[in-house]
Amino acid sequence: MIVHDLTTPALLVDVDALDANLADMAAALPGPRLRPHVKAHKTTSLARRQASLGHPGFTCATIREVEGMAAAGLGEDLLLANEVLDARRLGALDARITVAIDSDETLAAAVAGGVREVLVDVNVGLPRCGIAPALAGGLADRARAAGLTVRGVMGYEGHLMMLGDVEERAKLTEECMAKLLAAHADVGGELVSGGGTGTYALNRWVTEIQAGSYALMDTAYSAAGLPFRQALTVLATVVSVTAPAGEMPGWAVADVGLKSLGMDHGNPIVPGAQVWFCSDEHTTFAPDEPVKAGDRVRVLPAHVDPTIALHERMHLVQGDEILDTWAVDLRGW
Amino acid sequence: MIVHDLTTPALLVDVDALDANLADMAAALPGPRLRPHVKAHKTTSLARRQASLGHPGFTCATIREVEGMAAAGLGEDLLLANEVLDARRLGALDARITVAIDSDETLAAAVAGGVREVLVDVNVGLPRCGIAPALAGGLADRARAAGLTVRGVMGYEGHLMMLGDVEERAKLTEECMAKLLAAHADVGGELVSGGGTGTYALNRWVTEIQAGSYALMDTAYSAAGLPFRQALTVLATVVSVTAPAGEMPGWAVADVGLKSLGMDHGNPIVPGAQVWFCSDEHTTFAPDEPVKAGDRVRVLPAHVDPTIALHERMHLVQGDEILDTWAVDLRGW
Repeated sequence: MIVHDLTTPALLVDVDALDANLADMAAALPGPRLRPHVKAHKTTSLARRQASLGHPGFTCATIREVEGMAAAGLGEDLLLANEVLDARRLGALDARITVAIDSDETLAAAVAGGVREVLVDVNVGLPRCGIAPALAGGLADRARAAGLTVRGVMGYEGHLMMLGDVEERAKLTEECMAKLLAAHADVGGELVSGGGTGTYALNRWVTEIQAGSYALMDTAYSAAGLPFRQALTVLATVVSVTAPAGEMPGWAVADVGLKSLGMDHGNPIVPGAQVWFCSDEHTTFAPDEPVKAGDRVRVLPAHVDPTIALHERMHLVQGDEILDTWAVDLRGW
Repeated sequence: MIVHDLTTPALLVDVDALDANLADMAAALPGPRLRPHVKAHKTTSLARRQASLGHPGFTCATIREVEGMAAAGLGEDLLLANEVLDARRLGALDARITVAIDSDETLAAAVAGGVREVLVDVNVGLPRCGIAPALAGGLADRARAAGLTVRGVMGYEGHLMMLGDVEERAKLTEECMAKLLAAHADVGGELVSGGGTGTYALNRWVTEIQAGSYALMDTAYSAAGLPFRQALTVLATVVSVTAPAGEMPGWAVADVGLKSLGMDHGNPIVPGAQVWFCSDEHTTFAPDEPVKAGDRVRVLPAHVDPTIALHERMHLVQGDEILDTWAVDLRGW
């Protein structure tokens, strides 16, 4: 089967770019130094390809992601790097599950849900989840008193991932990690988990990096000067073309829009064209060279993660040939 | 079952607001004067509630929506108000199908796919699909020569839907519809289809209005001074709370984010709070009154359509009671 036979919109993954990204990251962070984050692709087939390169553990953002990874036989060491107030579905799984806690409420939920291992999530500067560093040790003590194994700490310097100035990114990462290491001194445990695609090469302080976007990349991350290649595109069909008239330039419309593209980082890129705007099922663009109805275009989404969450499947391609089709099987909650 | 038992994030539909919206619109545009657009909710159970108020036909944006409506027994008169280059799945359906065409390529696709009825899509000002008004009659002639029934014209004044000034919206709608009526004079047929929630009360020139957002509404449309009530919220759980420290105010984190909220119209509203930012599975907000981990909040999405496309189901609720759960069964393509 070739790409032209696909119904559009359709997610395409360039196998050569994907494999190069996975290999480059595995060389930089071999084995357990990388805990790939599945939220970026929500696809167990892609996670299996990451596992085959030697990474034994994975990071998840939702209970559904943990369940799906366990069901796919990838449950050797799953970290839910997120707080949950109802952990019963996690406790019921036949897999090694570690969940983040940052409060007595999330600690109580882990105990009540039958989860046995936790990480203390420490706030290192991003105003989101995580306990204040000075309070982390106390929470770890209470977790151990409640019978839980505390494997260590995690802290996500998410506000630094896309800082354009690499030296500034490195300096601020060090400041964030100083907070995490101070908390770790109080908490103990073998894991110091953090980082992401934007800081994978700068963060020398954690024992493992939670990167996800590196596998497929997107236009937002591409601006951060990283060595990874954009592997994901959304195949679209040109459904309408309007010729220039008077002062109005011509334009074309592709059948990708707000329901097939994550829009939080703005409009997608249509190579060789200027994008004007997106509607529910359309992107209006002005092409540099004429196009006609029926032509195919490969659109680059601004943000991969929410783009993938809108699709049921992704197609692994080499040029125009479809090598495999993977279910995006970790969607929902 | 009550709302508190739900896994979050979860879509909630307030049944009283929904039914008031459906009844108000059915009073304003009875029977075939309204052709409800299912793209706004992608849910056949909700469409059935619209049909029960007397609207015989529906508008769809994708082939999957048309297929799902036909499979649900709602195929009395389905308009795919969009251009497609492969209509074979439409031609195979046991339902009355009309598809929009705006070029010889889409005309040829309709013929090749076995579709028998078309509308000529006319550009009335929004730079998206639609043929220039002066060319519409010629396309209709070629469609009839190819054996198709041409039911009339459609033209969508989408760029006017959210104009805050109602008089300006009415004046520009009239200008757009003058173009559509000129094209209709050349094309013929019984249908002049157009409009939407923003112009349903202003557009006196079409024979039917293609409104969808009126059923559930969102914060973007709420600013347009319409009589419909916001019926859709996303139920979230507070998963983390950080107390004020020094000059830093306190904040809380709810488990809704870029994968459960359409973000093209910006951040959601958390009632009684200021939203700071959204991440993949989180919304960070500063609440006016203290909240604690485990509290539930009902978040108002900025744009309903892409929000719903991220969810598998919606729950029909009255206060805290769940009356029914509907599959969002028209997703995908």
